[in-house]
Amino acid sequence: MRATFMYEAGDVRVHDAPDPVIEQPTDAVVRVVRSCVCGSDLHPYHTMAASDRPVSMGHEFLGTVEELGSDVSGFKRGDLVVSPFAFADNTCEHCREGLHTSCPNGGFYAAGGIGGGQAEAVRVPQAQGTLVKLPADVDAALLPSLLTLADVYGTGYHAAQQARVRPGDTVTVIGDGAVGLLAVLSAKRLGAERIILMGRHKDRTDLGRFFGATDVVAERGDEGIAKVRELTGGHGTRAVLEAVGHMPAYEMAIGVVRPGGVISRVGVPQYAAAPVGFASLFGPNITLTGGPAPVRAYIDELLPAVLDGTVEPGRVFDRTVSLDQVPEGYRAMDQREALKVLVTP
Amino acid sequence: MRATFMYEAGDVRVHDAPDPVIEQPTDAVVRVVRSCVCGSDLHPYHTMAASDRPVSMGHEFLGTVEELGSDVSGFKRGDLVVSPFAFADNTCEHCREGLHTSCPNGGFYAAGGIGGGQAEAVRVPQAQGTLVKLPADVDAALLPSLLTLADVYGTGYHAAQQARVRPGDTVTVIGDGAVGLLAVLSAKRLGAERIILMGRHKDRTDLGRFFGATDVVAERGDEGIAKVRELTGGHGTRAVLEAVGHMPAYEMAIGVVRPGGVISRVGVPQYAAAPVGFASLFGPNITLTGGPAPVRAYIDELLPAVLDGTVEPGRVFDRTVSLDQVPEGYRAMDQREALKVLVTP
Repeated sequence: MRATFMYEAGDVRVHDAPDPVIEQPTDAVVRVVRSCVCGSDLHPYHTMAASDRPVSMGHEFLGTVEELGSDVSGFKRGDLVVSPFAFADNTCEHCREGLHTSCPNGGFYAAGGIGGGQAEAVRVPQAQGTLVKLPADVDAALLPSLLTLADVYGTGYHAAQQARVRPGDTVTVIGDGAVGLLAVLSAKRLGAERIILMGRHKDRTDLGRFFGATDVVAERGDEGIAKVRELTGGHGTRAVLEAVGHMPAYEMAIGVVRPGGVISRVGVPQYAAAPVGFASLFGPNITLTGGPAPVRAYIDELLPAVLDGTVEPGRVFDRTVSLDQVPEGYRAMDQREALKVLVTP
Repeated sequence: MRATFMYEAGDVRVHDAPDPVIEQPTDAVVRVVRSCVCGSDLHPYHTMAASDRPVSMGHEFLGTVEELGSDVSGFKRGDLVVSPFAFADNTCEHCREGLHTSCPNGGFYAAGGIGGGQAEAVRVPQAQGTLVKLPADVDAALLPSLLTLADVYGTGYHAAQQARVRPGDTVTVIGDGAVGLLAVLSAKRLGAERIILMGRHKDRTDLGRFFGATDVVAERGDEGIAKVRELTGGHGTRAVLEAVGHMPAYEMAIGVVRPGGVISRVGVPQYAAAPVGFASLFGPNITLTGGPAPVRAYIDELLPAVLDGTVEPGRVFDRTVSLDQVPEGYRAMDQREALKVLVTP
């Protein structure tokens, strides 16, 4: 099959690779129908050393079941399925609590010998716990929105969930990438009344307004903080959803959160330590929460409104490429020509 | 009147000072019946420079109303009252949300020109919002327990509340000072099933067992973490109540918290920054919460069980001194000869 590999920063190649096969009785092989490029794929695109071995890429996909291990029940060949970006057994103590990203039998695609989703097919470990069946007759126009359930929509929703966004709430979303925009959509779905989106790319913040943002703040740093405070009677908002992962975003979050409020991070932190003392979090009783989203826990809840078209999270895809064009997709996202790139086989 | 002042590290003096008077129509003057020395009073006792001006000390007291400003209603001279360690108007947006420590009209005793509680009398700003009336005929034996409502019991309760401790929960409490022990009592009151107390002073941890600790871990650092994990099937506990404030306690909290769990800090952090990245908080979806306790918000809830003797938080006082003996009280707490020192006028 054809599959995507990164060789070093800026060097993405699509070439032949061995077809995935069932290795464990709990595996399935899924033929990819749609996959995509993630903002987090750009981290190695910026930093990967040439001396490292090439790595397979992609962790978001939906497709059809091609093969099933002997321990996998509830699926048959040809079923249309979506996979969360983290596979998990869905039966352990952590999974039962909805924390599939901490499953001891779980893991991540495109890592540890498991192939990536930017490929023609993928081996899915713990397939029974991981995969979620979609209606067989689903309209192809819905596939982009369904694909967001693999990561970005669930990740934005995790940010809002962990912040316990509730009806009438005030929320700031930091970051106008796909996750930030879907955090806006999620906050709206949970009833937030005021949603301030901090982002400076007009085409993206316009989509944020479509998803439910009531205000857009293009300024950053102290200027952005002052603007949000001005919009909120000096207080800041109760919830802050941080969808970037860099230290300036963390600092802005502290600047715009209301006393007693919550900073919920889903941008993978690119720092190990940060301010948490009396002057930052402790004095004003700020809660810091978030982490990698256990999207498997949210798919059942989010699926109906996607299927009936109530929400259109797939609008984050603004470019489509074929599998062989994936390197061009990385380039376009890195250059911010594209918000998020959809991949067809 | 006589009042307590700190001149520099290790130098606490009790001497004459001007009697407090009504300065604002929202003030009251309270004659102190019981006060005490707080673990946090030991921070300046260790670090205060001689070049600083002497500061008045104490922020926990109960007493009788002696004078009332013209804007204070609902109290009369002679009423027995307890004061939270932070005064507040109890009417602003933050107070109405139960976050009295962020009241814009509020503040702290023994700071900013407001006298301390280790004195014969105290001026109470925002008296109507701050003071809570106690029954006139209360048994003197209950006064120590009632005094804990001013700070340590409410602070321990805040730790448990912010961690959302619930029936059947597993909890680790880090620190066997008065706040840690009352965090144990609070977790027990909220229904925790397993309460592991990390502390190495047997007389204190024995009191912790009396308050509800099911296990005591005397080891610290990696050894302590390993012990808690051993006690919890390798997972750690869902809630960790951190009642120390030093970095090693923060690091232990990260070591013993279960994936998806909560670290709730009420020990005033003696550090500005700390690990919060993928390897510490983010990867396992750990929530970090806590801050100075809005004890005013808890007094109404905690008072009945103190008055009827169901709980005896006043057991944390293991030594009583007169006002003139307060310096000896500091010395005894600093030397860990006393857990917490009660002061009678």
